[in-house]
Parts: sequence; structure tokens; C-alpha cells
Amino acid sequence: MNGYRLVGLALGLLLGVWGLVIGCRQPETASEEGVSAEPISLTDEEFARAKQLFFNYCAGCHGTTRRGATGPHLLPEAPEGSPYPGTRQLGTAAIKAFITSGTPGGMPDWGRQGILSEEEIDLLARFLQLPPPPIPPMNLADMRSSWKVHVPVEERPTRPQHNRNWRNFFGVVLRDAGKVAIIDGDTKELLSVINTGFAVHILRSSASGRYFYSIGRDGKVTLIDLWMDPPALVAEIKGAYDARSVDVSKYRGRRGNFIDRYAILGAYNPPHFVILDGLTLEPLKIIRTSGYDVNEGLFYDEARVASIVASHHDPLWVVNVKETGEVWLVDYAGVAAGKVKIDVLNAEQFLHDGGWDHTKRYFLVAANNKNKIVVVDVQEKEVEAIVETGIRPHPGRGANFYNPTYGNLWATGHLGDNTIALIATDPGPNQWKVVKKLELPGVGGGTLFIKTHPKSRHLWVDRTLNNDPELQRTIYVFDTETLELVKELKIPESIPQARAVHLEFNQNGDEVWVSAWGRKDDPSTNAILIYDDRTLELKQIIQGDWLITPTGKFNVYNTANDIY
Amino acid sequence: MNGYRLVGLALGLLLGVWGLVIGCRQPETASEEGVSAEPISLTDEEFARAKQLFFNYCAGCHGTTRRGATGPHLLPEAPEGSPYPGTRQLGTAAIKAFITSGTPGGMPDWGRQGILSEEEIDLLARFLQLPPPPIPPMNLADMRSSWKVHVPVEERPTRPQHNRNWRNFFGVVLRDAGKVAIIDGDTKELLSVINTGFAVHILRSSASGRYFYSIGRDGKVTLIDLWMDPPALVAEIKGAYDARSVDVSKYRGRRGNFIDRYAILGAYNPPHFVILDGLTLEPLKIIRTSGYDVNEGLFYDEARVASIVASHHDPLWVVNVKETGEVWLVDYAGVAAGKVKIDVLNAEQFLHDGGWDHTKRYFLVAANNKNKIVVVDVQEKEVEAIVETGIRPHPGRGANFYNPTYGNLWATGHLGDNTIALIATDPGPNQWKVVKKLELPGVGGGTLFIKTHPKSRHLWVDRTLNNDPELQRTIYVFDTETLELVKELKIPESIPQARAVHLEFNQNGDEVWVSAWGRKDDPSTNAILIYDDRTLELKQIIQGDWLITPTGKFNVYNTANDIY
Repeated sequence: MNGYRLVGLALGLLLGVWGLVIGCRQPETASEEGVSAEPISLTDEEFARAKQLFFNYCAGCHGTTRRGATGPHLLPEAPEGSPYPGTRQLGTAAIKAFITSGTPGGMPDWGRQGILSEEEIDLLARFLQLPPPPIPPMNLADMRSSWKVHVPVEERPTRPQHNRNWRNFFGVVLRDAGKVAIIDGDTKELLSVINTGFAVHILRSSASGRYFYSIGRDGKVTLIDLWMDPPALVAEIKGAYDARSVDVSKYRGRRGNFIDRYAILGAYNPPHFVILDGLTLEPLKIIRTSGYDVNEGLFYDEARVASIVASHHDPLWVVNVKETGEVWLVDYAGVAAGKVKIDVLNAEQFLHDGGWDHTKRYFLVAANNKNKIVVVDVQEKEVEAIVETGIRPHPGRGANFYNPTYGNLWATGHLGDNTIALIATDPGPNQWKVVKKLELPGVGGGTLFIKTHPKSRHLWVDRTLNNDPELQRTIYVFDTETLELVKELKIPESIPQARAVHLEFNQNGDEVWVSAWGRKDDPSTNAILIYDDRTLELKQIIQGDWLITPTGKFNVYNTANDIY
Repeated sequence: MNGYRLVGLALGLLLGVWGLVIGCRQPETASEEGVSAEPISLTDEEFARAKQLFFNYCAGCHGTTRRGATGPHLLPEAPEGSPYPGTRQLGTAAIKAFITSGTPGGMPDWGRQGILSEEEIDLLARFLQLPPPPIPPMNLADMRSSWKVHVPVEERPTRPQHNRNWRNFFGVVLRDAGKVAIIDGDTKELLSVINTGFAVHILRSSASGRYFYSIGRDGKVTLIDLWMDPPALVAEIKGAYDARSVDVSKYRGRRGNFIDRYAILGAYNPPHFVILDGLTLEPLKIIRTSGYDVNEGLFYDEARVASIVASHHDPLWVVNVKETGEVWLVDYAGVAAGKVKIDVLNAEQFLHDGGWDHTKRYFLVAANNKNKIVVVDVQEKEVEAIVETGIRPHPGRGANFYNPTYGNLWATGHLGDNTIALIATDPGPNQWKVVKKLELPGVGGGTLFIKTHPKSRHLWVDRTLNNDPELQRTIYVFDTETLELVKELKIPESIPQARAVHLEFNQNGDEVWVSAWGRKDDPSTNAILIYDDRTLELKQIIQGDWLITPTGKFNVYNTANDIY
């Protein structure tokens, strides 16, 4: 009974703070009564396993040093001023309950989903009550020792070695297989499956579209040449222990031609970014992002690069630093001359991901812990607005479309509620206001991605992290003119145990590819579903032994041109 | 005997690497044979004392985390690739010998000078064989809690409350007294002695000259209002645990009027800089300087702000990061709007101090461990040149003068040799070349400061850190036209046990003030010596019970206008 009371208290605490009161919340008594006296010890082997489990499942939201970010801190003793109790106060039973059942606020139900076993959850619950292990540094020499150029630039083709429409290729992340599949978007043929390393997070296309860059959770960047037949890995480097973002130089103009010239790796740990040669991945410059947050001025050694986008109008990247809430505009025009120019803008905590408005002058990024979207005027290099949208916005890169009533809109879904917020982007009295919220039927949020295309009149929405297994399998399609929900699409029953995640249009904007993200040990639970955007009918299912845990899909043309 | 052999080996190692071989150097055998097996232990009280001694005497050159900078690392085990042995390999006897006797390379002879006792040296020698203690963070709240505005802006006078020529006031650092004296440069009267905290490193004048800012080794900035009668402390803040630099905003022009608007504190530890309100010292923005060095790409958490200068032509500060060898040009025009723009330039390790050329377009800074001066073109925001000058250049801010043969020159002395290097600054084939070296008589360097003035034809040079007590007391005067040594001046014998350190002209450029830096427990060993710059005769000696350990002296007009 005591365990359950603690769980109730702890859940109450968490939910209370997250704005979703479900009764029985008594933070003061919890922190006084709830101190656990149980001794905690792990063997070296258990500690190493727990550390890896933590890295795989927890560090993204809670931080490697467990100081908290999207999720609360997970330190043995609560830091001063934190509304969350220490893990020693929660105790093993309560922590296990959280990991097993998740929370409506966005914590996944790792146990109920069967992703973590009871034994693993017990291990994690004990690990979390010990102090976090320190993060080792990573120097340039470490990166260089991992750097491999498989095909030197001079040995690469000077024109495509096939007659395919490579601008409509899709790169598909096969997350738990540690691979990326290249699929011809015209013919739907699988062209290549490339080893990329652990849990690729995203792909980015070079400005020309010729190259794909992958970034793995393990900090490895790979470079894939789509002109080769078949497309092949031409270079790789490990630039971090934990990473989420990669992008490329996209500017050509008065200040130089940087098409396919540089790449940038944005790391969680160590907290830094690395500027790479775009054609070889040679590391050129490392910049640390540790700093002081914009609100309390607390020092975060672990100030992680949450996301990066490349400007089309200036030679710069927008680098979003999660913990400090700073947006760094990183000008790369001087890299060859040994200089990097950075505009550090105070924005909001904790920054996550985002995308351009339709003019590509403004970048909109989620400060998800504050339920806000920050609008950065990248041309004027200043924060233009900060907009409250809903509970924990998760835009991916968001979606841009024109609506007859509201003009040009940029949209985001939410992890923590069932709404899509539409922000007006045209100059005028409504600019940077939420002019409309679209509602998803049913309880809770869980939306990871939304997507549209200039040639489509549909806004596509997933709900991958909803707690309801049925809603996890559902895709929602709204009409961008009427703003009505026009269709709910479900993963066919022939593909069991899968969640629907991530949507991508083809180059022409008349097809939408959706991942059915299943179990890594059973190909039949995985698929790519291809829908006709005009009829909203399922027109093709791609499956295969190679198709394991597909997540993100990246169309070359749309990715290179930031079409979403 | 074994102890002496080790000392010989260790000295040989150090000197070999520093380029001054004195026989018997056998690094390979030393690292194999020299491993000490003696057990090391300190009581908590001993450890705390040793830590403070290390902070006071060693951390400046070796770093708080003891990874090395101007001096070698002092870690128990040598880092990979380091030419210096670990302190455990050196052992207690060898380390004690170094601390007692110093090295010709620049390590002071703390024992022989009587600054550290035998017992303190023994304590340090043991402390250095244990791992360095971690550096705690310092958050904005810590700074705010130390922040005091003694006289609010609205209660300060709107015009000077005295009829003195305050632009010729001198601020004199009374280092070990923890005070700053304000002296009227016209009348030589002592106006005020102000408590500033531990070991003030420098003063800077606000752009108007009205205010002095002090920065202490303890990270405390004080603000002194010279319009008050007497001049008084009006605000203070502790923005670090260890610091060396402070400067002000000096720009007025198209991009705004920043006269007396901001100050900046450059810290050693934590490694950051803090932008402060110039009139209240309120902390506005903290930026971490941890990073990766420009040569090997090694990560330095302790990447310390070595020095800062303010541009007169642009709204920016030049922030020199010691360990990484990066020069950061920090644009402050957007601070009020929540943005800071930083140009990160790859320069050279390990950066120390420097000053403007006569046009104030170029900033010249010592990379003292590489025996080089880096020339930064602050207008074009790039490294213009890197010039080898001599062994461990220590320019202070250097000295600018016109010579009929070589044109405009910028000069630096050296810690490690007896030369003054003259670098041509005018455009042409000789620009940024060492066109001439002036030699100081006698063995060894030890020069900390050199100084001249546009109205003087003399270049003044100290030799404070020379190992020879007689040379420590000597000031050298060169003719800037003939480049001949025209006079050697010695501290009068009536002031025993003092070293000559730091030279400062008065506003008119016809007087030079020199510190006789003596013992903190005996005022008679301390003085300010005032020389007539035309006759080179000693015209006045300032002494007093208040005049304890004078070091830097800062004339308001010359400091505000960067005249040196």
C-alpha cells in the first residue's frame, strides 16, 4: 500500500506541476514523509547496463547529467528551488511505477508497452537513486580517430550514375536496425540499405540534394552519396557521445557559395557543435554550448544542442541550445579563415525543435517546458515573439500553409494536449498570434509530427506518443482551407503492434509516406504506408525483412528546400 | 642525494622543454625511474590551506584545475602527450625545490624570496600530488546576492564635487592590503583609500573617465566614483571565484552611445565573462568560455578569460581566452535587447595580455607559451598576423611610439629573455615584423611592463620577475628615437626589499610613476617613485602607512584613452 501511496503522491506532484491535477497532490508532505531509507547498490555490471538503458530511453528528456529538461530532474536530492522531489525521496517503488505506466504529461509507459522489462525497470529505478556518472570529454583527436572517408571526393562521380529522379528519393531511418534505407520515390524500389550506426535521429539533405547526412543518437554522422549506383556511404565520423541534429550550409550569394560546403553536428553530449567539411566530414571547429540559462542564470554544463536549421538567405545556422534557452545564430562564412561568428539570443527554456515560416526569414522553435513557441527573426537576428500555444509543443519542423481566412499559417502539434495551434505569420495585427486551434478527437496529445506541402490542401498529423494504443495508430488529416478534420486513417490491422509516426510528402506533393513503427524483432509489424494525398486512400504498403522500425522519412527535394 | 638527482632531472625536463638546456636532462629515464612511491595524505585543514595557497600563488600560471597554461601542468599523472612528468613522478623533494628556487623560465623563487615558508612549500608539494579539487559553479543568483549598490545612480553628483583635475587622478592598487588608493596626480595628495577586496589585479577607467572599475583576484568588481569628494565606492559585485580582467564600453557612434553604459568582468574561474550595467554593476548576461583549443582541439573546461580590451571604434570588447587560444570579439550593442554577438577567432595558445596599436584598429596580444604576439584586426574581425618575438612575451598593454627609422612601433618585453621586441605597425613590407630588439643588460628577463606616452621620447621598462634581486629593483629607460638605453634607475636604498613594478605616465606625459613593491608588513619597504620624464631624475617619493604593496597605477586620462 505504501508503494502505491507514494506513486499517487509522486504522480500528483508531477501532474500538478505539469498543470494536470488529478487529486491527491501534496508536494510538501511528499517531500517530508516520502524519504526512502532503503540502501541502494548496483554491481559494476548492473551500473553499466543501467547507464546504457538510461542513455537509450531517458537521457533525451531528462539529460545525461539528470538535471532535467523536457522532463523533470532525476537527481537523488532535489536541487534547490525544484518543485520535483529527489529520486531518493521517491524511492524505488514510485520510480518503477513512473517508468512502467508513464504520465499523461508525456512520460512514455515503457513497461506497459513492453519496451523495458520488469528487471530493467527495477535496475533503472535503483540507478536513478545514485548520483549520475560524469560525462567524459571528447577532443578533436577522438573525432579524427573515428573519421573515415570511404570514397574520396575525387573518386566520386561527377554526374548521377543512374537515370533515376534522385530528387524524389526518400531516406528512411530504420531506427533500431541502425540503418538508413534509400527508396526511389517514383518507383518505390529499395535502392540501398546503409549502415549508419545506433538510432539515427534525422537525415538532412545537402543544399544540392545530392548528399544525405544522418545523425545518430551515438553521435555518428554519415554521408551518403545519392549519385552513386546504388547510393552509398562515402564518409563517417563520430563527433559526440549523444547527438540529435545535423544540417548543412545552404547559402549561395554575395558572401560566397557554400552549397554542399559544410555540415554541422549538434550534440547533446558533450554539449557542443562541430563544423565539418561538407564533402569529407573532416572536423574543422568545435564550439562548446555550456552556459547560463536565460531565466535564472543557472549554469548548465550540459547545455545541449536541441536542433539546428540552415538559413537559405544568409550563411548561418540556427543552433538551439536546450537548457540555456539561447538561440545561437552561427555564421559559417569565415570558417575557412579560422573564424565563426555567433549571435547569442536570449529566448526561452527548454528549446527543442522547429522550422521556418514560409518566407524562411523567421524560425519558429518550441520552448516545450514553457508551452511556448519562440519566433526568431533570422534576418534581423533577434527574437521577434514568444507565443504560448499549448502543453509541450512538438512541431518537428512544423507545417506552413495558406488559409483564406487567416492568411499564411505555421502550425504545431503538442505532446501534452490534443490540439494543433495555428500561428499567423503574415504582417498585421494577428502576426505571431495563435489564431485558431484544431482539436484531435479523444484524450491526450502525443503528436510528434505534422506536415503539409504547397501543392496539398491537407495537414497531416500523427499522435505517436499518446497513451492509447489505438490513437497511436491513427493519422489525422485536416483540410487547410476549411480547417475541418476530414479523415482519420488507421494503420491496417494486418500490421499489428505498430505506431504511426512521421509524415513526409513526395516531391510533387501528391503522396504522403507514413511510418508504421513496430517491433525490432518482427518485420511484419513494420511498414511504410503510402497515401494518396488527393483521395486520402492508402495506395501502397512497403514491407520487407530490411524494413525494421522505420521512423523519419526524408524526401530529398522537400528536405533540401525546407518544404513542410 | 636522490632528492637532488630528481631536482636535477626535473629542472632539466622543464628547462629542456622551455628551450634553455642546462645539462643532465633525460625526460625518458626521468619518467621511468622517477616515480615516487611515497604515500601522500593531507588533513582536511591542510588541504584547505594548501588549496588557498595554490590559488594565491600558483593558479594564475598553472590553472585552478592544474592542466597548465603559462606554466606546465601540475597533475599527479602526466596527461597523454605532455612533455612534463606527473607530480607523483616528480615527488615531494623535486616539487619543493621548484617552489623554493624557481626556474629561469619564469617560475618565481617563492621560497628564496621568503614569500612562502618551508612548511607552506612542503604543504603545497604534497597537495600537488593529489588530484585537483573540482571547481564549483557560480550562478546568477550567487552574483546577485553579492551585488551591492552603495550609492544609487540618482544620488550621485551630476558634476564633480571638487575643483581638482580629476582626469589626472591615479588609482593605485595596494595589492596585499586589498585596497585602492586614489591620488591627485597634480598635487600628489592622497584623496581616498577604498576597500576593494583581495589582490586587485587591474583598474579600468570608464569611457568618460569618471569611474574606476577594479577587478580583484577574488572575482570582485568595485565601482569608484571620482566626482565624489572624496572619491568613493558606489557599487560592488562578486562575479567569479578568480578573475583578472574588467573593462568598459567605450563606443559612441552610429550604433549608439555606450559611454559608461556597460562593464565586463573576465573570469578565470568559473571560466566565463559577465556583462554588467556600467553604473550599478547589475549582472546582465553571463557567457561561458569553455571550449576546444585552436591547435589540438583538446577540451578545456577551464578556458579562462586572460584579458579584455574595449574598442573605441566599434561597440565591442576583445576577450582573450587563454587555454583555447581563441580571441572573442564580443559586440555589446544588443545587450539591452537580449543579444550578444561574438566573433570567435582562432589565434594561438595561451593568450595572456595585450594592447592596441596606435590606430586602435589592431589589438596585439601575447600567446606567451608559444613565444608569439597575435595581431587581431578588430575592424575586419580577423587575425592579421602571428609574430614570434622572444621567450614568453609579457606586454602588459605594450607601448606605442614613432621611430624615425622604423615608423610606428608597438613594443613588448619578455618574461623569459632580456629583450624588448619592436614590431612595426605601419602598412608596408615590415608591417607585423620584429624590426628591432632592444637588449636589457644582465642575465634573464622578468619584464612585466613597458610604457611610453605620445609626449615622451622615452620607453620605460621594468624587470620585476628577474631572479636577481638587484635587477628586480632596476628600471630601464630607452630613447625612442635612437633606441639606445639611456638610463638605468634603481629604487633608492632607503627603500629596501622592494621590486620595481609597473610604470604609468601622468596625463601630460612628463612624469612617470613607478611602484616600489615591498613587504606587506612593513610600509618603509613600499613607495611610489615619481620620475621626471625629461630629466629622468627622481622628483618625488610617496610613502605612508597606507601605502602597502603598490602594484598597478592607472592614470584616468591615459587609461580611458588607451594611451601607452
